[in-house]
This record gives sequence, structure tokens and C-alpha cells, in this order.
Amino acid sequence: MATYFSKRNLQFLLHEVFQAEQLAQYEYFSGHDKETFNMVLDSVTHIADTLMHPYFKDADKNQPELKDGKVTVHPKVKEFLKAMGEAGLIGAGFSYDHGGQQLPELINSTVGFILMAANNGMMYTGLTSGAAHLITSFGSEELQKTYVENMLSGKWQGTMALTEPQAGSSLSDVVTSATPQPDGTFKIRGQKVFISAGDHDAADNIIHLLLARIDGAPKGTKGISLFVVPKYRTDGAPNDVTSTGVYHKMGQRGVPAMHLTYGENDDCIGYLVGQPHMGLSYMFQMMNEARIGVGMTAAAIATAAYHAALQYAKERPQSRRLNQKHALDAPQTPIINHPDVRRMLLFQKAVTEGSLSLLLETARLFDLAQVTEGEEKENNTLLLEILTPMAKTYPSEMGVQATSQSVQTFGGYGFTEDFPVEQLYRDIRITPIYEGTTGIQAQDLLGRKMTMKGGKAAQLLFAEISKSIAEASAYDDLKPYADKLKGELKQAQEVFMALMPHAMSDVERYLSDATLFLEMLGIVTVAWQWLKQAVVAKQALLTQNPQGDELTFYEGKIHTMKFFFHYEVPKTLGLAARLKDPEVLTIVSEKELAL
Amino acid sequence: MATYFSKRNLQFLLHEVFQAEQLAQYEYFSGHDKETFNMVLDSVTHIADTLMHPYFKDADKNQPELKDGKVTVHPKVKEFLKAMGEAGLIGAGFSYDHGGQQLPELINSTVGFILMAANNGMMYTGLTSGAAHLITSFGSEELQKTYVENMLSGKWQGTMALTEPQAGSSLSDVVTSATPQPDGTFKIRGQKVFISAGDHDAADNIIHLLLARIDGAPKGTKGISLFVVPKYRTDGAPNDVTSTGVYHKMGQRGVPAMHLTYGENDDCIGYLVGQPHMGLSYMFQMMNEARIGVGMTAAAIATAAYHAALQYAKERPQSRRLNQKHALDAPQTPIINHPDVRRMLLFQKAVTEGSLSLLLETARLFDLAQVTEGEEKENNTLLLEILTPMAKTYPSEMGVQATSQSVQTFGGYGFTEDFPVEQLYRDIRITPIYEGTTGIQAQDLLGRKMTMKGGKAAQLLFAEISKSIAEASAYDDLKPYADKLKGELKQAQEVFMALMPHAMSDVERYLSDATLFLEMLGIVTVAWQWLKQAVVAKQALLTQNPQGDELTFYEGKIHTMKFFFHYEVPKTLGLAARLKDPEVLTIVSEKELAL
Repeated sequence: MATYFSKRNLQFLLHEVFQAEQLAQYEYFSGHDKETFNMVLDSVTHIADTLMHPYFKDADKNQPELKDGKVTVHPKVKEFLKAMGEAGLIGAGFSYDHGGQQLPELINSTVGFILMAANNGMMYTGLTSGAAHLITSFGSEELQKTYVENMLSGKWQGTMALTEPQAGSSLSDVVTSATPQPDGTFKIRGQKVFISAGDHDAADNIIHLLLARIDGAPKGTKGISLFVVPKYRTDGAPNDVTSTGVYHKMGQRGVPAMHLTYGENDDCIGYLVGQPHMGLSYMFQMMNEARIGVGMTAAAIATAAYHAALQYAKERPQSRRLNQKHALDAPQTPIINHPDVRRMLLFQKAVTEGSLSLLLETARLFDLAQVTEGEEKENNTLLLEILTPMAKTYPSEMGVQATSQSVQTFGGYGFTEDFPVEQLYRDIRITPIYEGTTGIQAQDLLGRKMTMKGGKAAQLLFAEISKSIAEASAYDDLKPYADKLKGELKQAQEVFMALMPHAMSDVERYLSDATLFLEMLGIVTVAWQWLKQAVVAKQALLTQNPQGDELTFYEGKIHTMKFFFHYEVPKTLGLAARLKDPEVLTIVSEKELAL
Repeated sequence: MATYFSKRNLQFLLHEVFQAEQLAQYEYFSGHDKETFNMVLDSVTHIADTLMHPYFKDADKNQPELKDGKVTVHPKVKEFLKAMGEAGLIGAGFSYDHGGQQLPELINSTVGFILMAANNGMMYTGLTSGAAHLITSFGSEELQKTYVENMLSGKWQGTMALTEPQAGSSLSDVVTSATPQPDGTFKIRGQKVFISAGDHDAADNIIHLLLARIDGAPKGTKGISLFVVPKYRTDGAPNDVTSTGVYHKMGQRGVPAMHLTYGENDDCIGYLVGQPHMGLSYMFQMMNEARIGVGMTAAAIATAAYHAALQYAKERPQSRRLNQKHALDAPQTPIINHPDVRRMLLFQKAVTEGSLSLLLETARLFDLAQVTEGEEKENNTLLLEILTPMAKTYPSEMGVQATSQSVQTFGGYGFTEDFPVEQLYRDIRITPIYEGTTGIQAQDLLGRKMTMKGGKAAQLLFAEISKSIAEASAYDDLKPYADKLKGELKQAQEVFMALMPHAMSDVERYLSDATLFLEMLGIVTVAWQWLKQAVVAKQALLTQNPQGDELTFYEGKIHTMKFFFHYEVPKTLGLAARLKDPEVLTIVSEKELAL
């Protein structure tokens, strides 16, 4: 079987860089240790290797179809859901009370990474887990009893039913209605689009976590409530949820994206989750996890593409080295020996391993925010909040580019279905759109996270990065990179100071280039992750006297860190120049006629 | 019908910027004037509107299949080829002697642009024309008489049969053999892969222009000869060319990419074109046209995507402007009014119209190189040579990114088959690979074109750019951009000076970041094209008192020029920093173990 991720790299990040075991010192995670973590990862790797990866192309080729009101998905999906449920992997992150294993998100998100690297088109269990988490966090005892067990066992599918045809990213314009009934339930009426796994035949029931407005609710985001809307009621009767259409998509074809109609015959019952009008705030409490999840999916897809390209580049002979062009009797050299190909591969490695590191950093903060108290908790939460837009966007946007370079590494073959990269290139393109587009993430970062609590989140982030800079400065060969990162922090601060004056006076102007600000800070945070990895690798090289593959591994880490600093970090120069530039060119009143 | 390109922009570029009519002052083009040019464009637009664009999705959905040795393509292909032949559009660029119209490449490449914007998956006629051009340029009277007429009428398909499974980009490793026969013909034996339109049922015969080695020929590129190898011989008998496979591709699915076997039964006859061992040099004389053709295809695909995104952004209401977020009673605003969406659209406009301008500049040089004499001819040829790698690569690489932003403009809908952008995103990905990958183009630019004739081509290019700078400097509001471009030229020269010392001592080191050099010079040349367009627009605004749509058009040109300078040009800062940086990280001997 082809390699689709590096186990060694996962072990390095989890145990050497992020010291996963340290989480076990907290009461909540005290049932775990390195061994239980690795058991979970072995278990999911087995499922990924046997039930997912072999069907990577097959699930793409046989995309879900809607016929006679039924959605048929790949036959392996049912087996996969069952195996995941039986291994306890759908609810592994849930508390013992809710039937989970209290597994840290650091490990749980790694489970997602492995699954998505194996076959990202079979994206079912993360959705169920997110939906069930909303019920256990905010739902009544009864809702919990009715739904959670069957969801975590893989029998029932969960969904997030947010998007509506007329609303898209603008959740304040949601119009699906909920009419109170005498028995305390609600009648739901409306349409939702792009509902992933919104209907399929591999689950016995579909449980929608749906946003709707209770009749008479305030306008905007403050009038939105959260409901559980099952496809089948507890007595087995259908609940008037109609599959109106299945979108045919460019990628991620293994999972159906549904257009659903609720209450076509005025007989769709929904159950309120928590308090009325609190739906969006509940949803947002799940948002960090969901966004880390999308970033992880992107990192996983780009990782699978990188490993395919790496293997090809090692095996494919083509031409001679540029200094030996005329040695026509010499055999052709593997393309990995051409600097341009090596540059493309190092780019893919730098992006994918840097992304994964940033995502695990974020997942670890998620865990720490959960188990710490007082100021520590607040600090962890603020760091998690500010890193989330980068952790969602950098892996997605740069993952698209990395996967494009995987295609390029294969040349013409990369464009054909003979290799996996064309599919991965199609699959990954959705990730800058899912769970808040890049533009929405950018507004979140610059419009909210940078300024929240008087800028405290940003200060904390810069302090964390400065800690890594100080650590790296102790090593002569890392110091130049530490200094470089110090300069990047300074530049980022200057850019922010140049933008700040607009924040109060003209928010549209303030945010007009927010996407570029996010891009710049994404590069800075991933540079930080590379410096962090390089410090750990350096320490291993100095203290462990590694040999063979281990030596290669650690040297490769330091080499890739250097690559990131020499090839990727300079991109901030252009971004900073633009962000400090006062010329406004994208605001409608400035130039009504430009397009 | 949806708009897939802007006729107004084409008219602007052809007549206002590049003054196509001026070509008619040369004897060779003297049969033409603005009217005949526009008749050609009307004629091709009619074909594109009626026979191509309506089948854009259909051709993708019904990709060519190989069954019982026959390749079936979309039924409209035959009609399309017939219409193109009857309109004289396949051979329009050929001389009157060869049945053509002596149409300048400036117009001929625009014909390609319109066809490819309409339906790039039906890429047949450009291949035939390129193959026929090789025969008219280098083939015997007899070959010309036998093949050219049926090719230009659209009855017979032409192909370029270069790539072999073991050789790919490395043409010096071609092994297909040609054994001389007593009658002066050759027996051909070998395999070719990725042969576009290499077999199909819409043509009565397939004429391969094939590279092979005559038995005993020298090794390397100097032993390669060019042959005509028909699928059917003149007596109608099959010529032992077997369709071994059809590649299933991510995009451009309307045209089959074939794996072909020649001489499986030792009965494949080939006819030598020109002199033995001159094949590659003949092929390279066609290379500029072919590379402009690929750039044009990329620009056309990205243009179609931009116009789809623009239309959607004008029509799709979503959310309120950022300064009016809380005006919940206000209707949602079209997304074009959001700065981030406008930025994405301006990016697409800047890339696509800048690319098209660069391509037409290059096509015009192709024409001038053909009709001028002496030093003028040499200068035009050198300019054409140095611009070709940029004209192929910038539209391809940046077109991929522009089309990605078209998808992003649509949000989730862009990922579905309900809109054309997902297909265009798949289609365009091949263009950085076709006709020499980006890496190959980069080696051509830095390794050959920058240094040829003692650097004269580069000097001529910089002189041309400086002319536009001088013109723009006459207008107060364009002067800052002229100054900026002057700075970019200086920076590019500094970068080149920093690399030069390696050119003699270590060519692998010299070329190790050639792709970044090409990227940088691509931005500079497209900035030049935008400044050129802005000068023409400025003159029109000052002298023609345009109103309404015309005013919008010219102001939009100046606005987009500014956008290019404020958002795209700063990217050279990071590229120049990397290119001047002495750290070597991609050469194999430096770090065997990095990956």
C-alpha cells in the first residue's frame, strides 16, 4: 500500500514537540498515557488502511445519487461507521459520562488527520461527533438519552444544518422557521443546502442539528435557535424531511452534500436544544473544533498528495542533472535530484508538516483551555481563539497550492486518473470554503481576535512566539532564524499599527485587506512552528546521537525549517508592503465602475 | 447565453493597444484591414457560440472512450471541425500558397482565445494547424500535396507525437526508431503518450508529426528526426498505428489524450520531413507558436471563469456592507460590494486581461519577426524569444490561481457542477504542464534567453519596457506607476547580476531557483502590459470624452492597472529577496537526506 502520511512525523509532533503525555497530569485526562494514545492511533490506522484507503478512488468514482427519495452511498461507508463506532472512535473525545474516552483533542484531531489522509471523501464521523457534542453540551437529559448513544456507535449520522440558499455565509439571514406546539416541540419549515452527509443509506437515522427562528424571534443573529431534527422519529415514523437534491461536486465525492426541505407537508418536528435564541452562540462554541477539523482535513489531503509525489520523484528517472546534461550515456536520474523538483517537494513538506504542527498546537490549546482554571484558562482560550483562523486557513489555502505542486511533480501523469493527486487536488479545493470561507476567517482574525480584550490574545501569541525565539537563540545555527522571526513579529506589529486607526472610524476600510493580513500572520505562525520543530530536532541531534533514518529525519526537519525561512517567509515582504499602503482600491464607493 | 469573454476588451487590445491594422502596411499582410480582422473574429465567435460553448459541460461529462480499438468523441466535434475548415479558420495563418489567408498571428491567436474561452475541452484545430505548419515549413512538395489540404479543411486531424513513456520532458531520451526502407520511406516502431487528439472518430484520418531516431543516429537531441505518420495510408489501408489507451484526465476531457503504439506488427510507414536528424530543431521553430497557444488557452479558461464569477457576484445578494452590519432591515447587498470579493474579482481581471495583453504583444512580435528584415527582424525575434517563457507561464500559473479565486467567489456553489467554474478549475490545471512545464520554461528563460547574444534579448525587453515608462510618465496620475516599474526593472537587473556569477561556474546552482526568476519577470512584464493599457485608456479619457459604458471601461482599465501595481507587483519583493539570498537548499549534494 502506498504511504499516505508519515507515522514518524506524527510521533515526533505528538510526543517530542507537544509532549502529549503531559496532558495526563490533568485529572480529566488522567486515564491516558502515551500507550493509550498510541493504541488509539494504531486502531484508527488499521481502520484507515483497511476500510478507507483502499476505496479512495472507488468512492470518488461512485458518487452518491438521489433516486426515489433515497441517497445511496458507497457500500463500505456502513462498515466504516460500524468499525469506528465499535472502536469507540466517534465519541472518543466525549466525557466518560457521555460514553466517551475523554481523549484529548490533540489525539482526537490526529485521528481525523489519519482518516482524512486515507480517504477524505469518506467524511462522516467528524460530522456525527460534532452534532452529538452539541447535544451533550446544551441539550436536555432526554435529548441526550434519545440520540447520543446511537450516534456515537455509528448507527445514526449527525449533521450540521446551517446554510440556506438565500443566506450562505450570512447566518443572520437564516429564515427556516420553528413554530411552537402545545407539547413543547416545534414545527420546522425551511430549506437547507450543502448539508454534508445530510441523507444516506449507511445510517439508520439522520440527526440534524438545525438553526431556525422561533416565530416572532428578533431579527439577525440574536433570534436564531438550535434544534434537533431527526429524519425518523423515535417511533420510527418519517419526520417530513425531504431530500430535494444531492449536489454533484468537483471533489469529496464520497460524501453527499444535500439540499434538504424540512416540513414540506407541515409535519416536521424539531426539539429545541438549550434556550431559545441561543442557537448561534451554541454553534459558535463548537466552531473552534469544526475549524480545526477543516484545517486538519486540508493538511491531511495535502499530506497524502505530498507522499504520493515524493514516492514518484524518487522512482521516476528523467533527464540528467543540469551539470551533466551532455553525458548522454549516463542513465537518467530520478527527478528528485533536479533542484526545481526538490524545491517543489520541500515546499509541500514545509506546508504540510508546518500546517500539522500548527493544528496540533491549536488542538493542545483546546485541551488546556478545557482543563485549566482562572487566568491560565483565559490565556489558553485566548490563544486558541486567535490561532483558530490561521489553523483553519493556512492549511487550506496553502494546502491547495501544495497539492497543485504535487500534481506538477508528476507532470502530465499528475493530470490523469492513474495517480491519486488529481483527485486530491479536486478534494482539497473545498477547504478554503467550508466552515467560514477564507474571507470570513480573515474578518474574524482582524475584526475580532486581534482586538479582543484590548489586544490580549495577540499579545499572548506574540509572547509564545518570543519564547520559541529565545529557545532557538541558544543554538548557533538556529539563531539566524530566531532573529529572522523576531523581525517578522516586529513587521507584523507595524502592519497592525498601520491598520488600527481605521478600526474605529471605518470598519470596511479596516477589514478591506483582512485576507492579506491573515495570510501574513499565517506565514509567521507557521514559521514559529518550524522553529519550534527545529529546536526539538536540534536537541535530539545533540543528545541522542541518532543514526540512519533517525538522523535523516531530524536533519530533514532542520533543513525544511531553513527552506521555510528562505522561501516562504520572504512572502511577508510583499504582504506587509501592501497592507501598509494607504491606497484604497476595493471599496465600492471609491470606484463604482471598476469592473 | 452567459458571457465568457469581453468583446470590448478584445477590441481595445487589438485595435487601440496593439493597432492590428498597422500590420497591413507589410506586404505579407496587405490583404487585411480592420474589417477583415473583425470578420474573422465574428465568424469564430459564431462558431464558438453555436458549436462549442453549448457543449462545454456535455463534452466534459462524456469523455472519449476507447472501445474495440476505436476512440469515440463528442458528436459535435465533427460538426465543429467542418465549420472551422469551411470558414478557413484552421489554416487562416497559412500563406496564400498553402491555402491560407495570411492572417497575422495577432488575430489568429485571438481566434484561439475565443474558441478556448467557449469550450477549451474541444481543443482540436490548433493541433491540426500546428502539425500542418510543420509540413508546409519543412516537408517535401509531395507531403504538402498529400496532407495539408485535408488537414486545413478539418477532414483530417493533426497531432504532435513527441512524448514517450520513459522520456517525458527529456526529448533527448526519445527512443522511437525509424528504419530506412528501399523506397525512401521508414518503418516506425515505438510508443508515444499524452498525444492530444491522437485518435478519434470525428476525423477521417489522423496525421502524426512524430519524433523518432533513424537507425544509427547520434545520441541525444542531435539524432532526432521528424516524420509524418498517418493513421491511414493514401490508399486507405491502415498504417499499423494502434490506440493502446486513452488517459482519463481531471480536465480538458473533451479531447482524448492517447497512448499510441507505432509498428506493433512492424508495418508502420513514416515519411521523413526535411533533413535527417533535424527533427528537434524543426519542432523548436514551431515551439513559440505552441507555447503562445498554451498561454492563450490558459488566459481563455481563466477569462471564462472570471466572467462567470463577475456575473454571479453582481447578482448574488449576501449579507450587508461591513459598515452596515447591524442594519438588519436593509436588504442584503450583492457580494461584489464586499471589498474582499471585489479584491478577488480585480485579481481575476488583472491576471486575465494582463495575460491576454502579454500574449497579444508576443503574437504581434511573432508577426513582426516574420515580415521585417535585417536588424529589425533580429530584434523582433529576440524579443519574441525572451517573452515566450513568460507568455506561456504567467497565464498558466496565475490563471490557475485566478480560476481558484473564481471558485472562491461562488463559495460552496463554485465547488458544484451547477456552475462552470469547477470544470474550468480542473481544465486549466494542465496548462503549467503542457508544452514544457513551468520548470522547463524557467530553465529556458534564465539558462538560454537571458544570456543569448550577450544578453541582447534582455536589453531589448528592458528598452521596450522603458519606452512605456517614458510614455506613462507624461501623465501625472500614471507617473507614480511608471516610477514604480522603473524600480522593478532595476530590482530585476540586480537579481540577475547576483545570479550571473554562477552561470559559468555551476549551471545547476545558477538555475536552481529559475522558476522564481521566471515568476518575478512574469510579474514585471505583466505590470508593463498594464501600464501600456493604462496609457491608452488615459489618452482615450482625455481625447474622446467617453460616456456610460465606455467611460466605465476606460476607468476600469486604469483602476485595474493600479490594482496590479498595489497588490501584485509587491510580490516581487519576496521573490527578489529569495533570489539574492546565497543559501542553497535544493541541490542534492548539499543535503542528500533532506526528504
